Amino acid sequence: MGRRYDTVTFLSDYGTADEFVGVVKSVIRSIAPHAAVIDLTHDVEPHDVRGGGLVLARSAQYLNPGVVLAVVDPGVGTDRKGVAVEVGDGASVLVGPDNGLLAAAVAMVGGADRAVVLDNDEYQLPAPGPTFAGRDVFAPAAAHLCNGVDLDALGTLVDPATLLPGLLPVTREEDGNLVAEVLWVDRFGNAQLNVDPDEIDGWGDKVRLHFKETSRVATRANAYAEVKTGHVGLVVDSYGMLSIAVDRGSAASELGLHAGDPVTMENLEA
Amino acid sequence: MGRRYDTVTFLSDYGTADEFVGVVKSVIRSIAPHAAVIDLTHDVEPHDVRGGGLVLARSAQYLNPGVVLAVVDPGVGTDRKGVAVEVGDGASVLVGPDNGLLAAAVAMVGGADRAVVLDNDEYQLPAPGPTFAGRDVFAPAAAHLCNGVDLDALGTLVDPATLLPGLLPVTREEDGNLVAEVLWVDRFGNAQLNVDPDEIDGWGDKVRLHFKETSRVATRANAYAEVKTGHVGLVVDSYGMLSIAVDRGSAASELGLHAGDPVTMENLEA
Amino acid sequence: MGRRYDTVTFLSDYGTADEFVGVVKSVIRSIAPHAAVIDLTHDVEPHDVRGGGLVLARSAQYLNPGVVLAVVDPGVGTDRKGVAVEVGDGASVLVGPDNGLLAAAVAMVGGADRAVVLDNDEYQLPAPGPTFAGRDVFAPAAAHLCNGVDLDALGTLVDPATLLPGLLPVTREEDGNLVAEVLWVDRFGNAQLNVDPDEIDGWGDKVRLHFKETSRVATRANAYAEVKTGHVGLVVDSYGMLSIAVDRGSAASELGLHAGDPVTMENLEA
Repeated sequence: MGRRYDTVTFLSDYGTADEFVGVVKSVIRSIAPHAAVIDLTHDVEPHDVRGGGLVLARSAQYLNPGVVLAVVDPGVGTDRKGVAVEVGDGASVLVGPDNGLLAAAVAMVGGADRAVVLDNDEYQLPAPGPTFAGRDVFAPAAAHLCNGVDLDALGTLVDPATLLPGLLPVTREEDGNLVAEVLWVDRFGNAQLNVDPDEIDGWGDKVRLHFKETSRVATRANAYAEVKTGHVGLVVDSYGMLSIAVDRGSAASELGLHAGDPVTMENLEA
Repeated sequence: MGRRYDTVTFLSDYGTADEFVGVVKSVIRSIAPHAAVIDLTHDVEPHDVRGGGLVLARSAQYLNPGVVLAVVDPGVGTDRKGVAVEVGDGASVLVGPDNGLLAAAVAMVGGADRAVVLDNDEYQLPAPGPTFAGRDVFAPAAAHLCNGVDLDALGTLVDPATLLPGLLPVTREEDGNLVAEVLWVDRFGNAQLNVDPDEIDGWGDKVRLHFKETSRVATRANAYAEVKTGHVGLVVDSYGMLSIAVDRGSAASELGLHAGDPVTMENLEA
Repeated sequence: MGRRYDTVTFLSDYGTADEFVGVVKSVIRSIAPHAAVIDLTHDVEPHDVRGGGLVLARSAQYLNPGVVLAVVDPGVGTDRKGVAVEVGDGASVLVGPDNGLLAAAVAMVGGADRAVVLDNDEYQLPAPGPTFAGRDVFAPAAAHLCNGVDLDALGTLVDPATLLPGLLPVTREEDGNLVAEVLWVDRFGNAQLNVDPDEIDGWGDKVRLHFKETSRVATRANAYAEVKTGHVGLVVDSYGMLSIAVDRGSAASELGLHAGDPVTMENLEA
């Protein structure tokens, strides 16, 4: 037997209007009644593997150890593999499809120790159709792990290096500017960039942002509420990344920014 | 005393923008602190008894035994009755309004053993107004059941056959075609039909679907991702029903289909 | 050591599309694994301190005793204070920003016994940026309170009378009419007024409502479903307040009413 776990952190693109999330939790409770399930979010855009992977990566260092169940799975029912990936010397196990969704989070916590393909159907539910792997494959795997079933009982061990990697965009320099990208627009409309504040160390308080054939000067600020009315601010967000913000409004709406959009940062003191 | 329960599965049309769901859970916890509440969904369309009943019916076989609390209740405050319905030799009890909401789920798990009308106000909260039976009547009933209060303490026993039935649409043959109906459009836009795949056994890979004065040829596929780009697919979904799908898009949006719409299936090999 | 708590009731304007709520719960579970978290709602409009305060006030008397964690915090990262406020001889503690959000709920349950400013960073997480106090300040405070850490260990005791008050609109008489306000539009479109039914005692069954340069006659009814089709009803809602309703539709949509709108009530029998 392996280590027992008592927490399942659950992310998906299932939404909450259908019963998918509740059924998955009910399956977990039927198998491992002692386990608590924490919803990370279920409102990842349908099939947005990149967006779901970024949620996991942002959250990873704050998650209670245990099982992480992550399902954004456009290839469900095809030959894409379901996997369980052990990290942190067994402190946590991530369960989900092998489509890059788990990759950034695994990397954030130090990489994988072991991984299995979930091909032992003794630890799965019989399925009337092949399209709800969350219920039939991933939830049972998560619950059995909570009960102390060892990782290698769930299926065939594979080299973690063979798992599909996630693709995180990196910044690049171009003519002295920094070419960045919007990683995420949060509920408040703040647009997180893939830029560590160290990357613009020494640039001064004002930075010109070029995007979508226009540009705006943004001013560094310590908090969203310190961005002056009518101005664009550049705030170090709660994950330590640079974020474009306006005061009590949505920067993304005002500037027309979406996740994935390129933003070029120009050093005005260069 | 009756059997104790430790799980309440909770469905409603309360949404999650107001405090209704949280208040119901708080009432349950005040009375039965050992009980865990699993949200099935709270985004049933307001007053959509049929839609809520279908969610319960789809989920029934996957739910952890215990109490099922279901509230879609347009008649709240009128003389419609609140009921608790025992099923599976006491394995579970469904609590909610007697308006057909519970009927299909009760039938799915083998029918009712016993039923009571919730007319014993000793097991209810005093109510400042008659419009929040979830908080004042149904949540206390669910919680007292968890504590081992017997069903018949909650009110007057009634013959389960007198409960309001749910109306599930059945298919019919017409001129050799199968007249079906969209039961449900899920988050991904798949349109579940009220058709068991056995009903079109031997029809071959392609089926013509007639709906809304147009028609499309749909191709059988084993998974959503196997539907070819630009094609309409017919997939056995995770509940074992036929579902209309397109790859990585919403079939319902593309074809203009909604729950309740008729779809006539034509056998192209006939 | 202080009293231990086992329930955290959690309200915010975080929404559920991002991971904020899940991360806060994960932080609580890491510190106080025995505590259950009940979501009151996370769909308070972004930065709507008044709306969030009204949710708390409506819910207060129904909440299971314990810690109430409330975060609607447009001033996060500025010098606004975080506070914890003890009520009910220590039965509950409310944790959140000192911006008026907690005030009405505190008043509803009898006022504050003690209050502290959360300025002891031994009970906080180190923060990569100053903008997620829910994760870094409030969640740890809530969790440590659950573990029995005394209120005064979390920071500096302050006179509860110095906390920012909430502003609840009161009705006023004007030319024999009652000038009221829409406090809240619920999911079903019912528009709750800040009017106790006693305030229109003796007015008779019909009342004229003036709003937005028009007026409608509303009829008193005992339940939403008793409002006749095509009529406007006035129902005592589940909190004991007068609420404008139509049968199986949204009164707010039909009449164009929103939270904060003034409504003047005219006594037709005067």
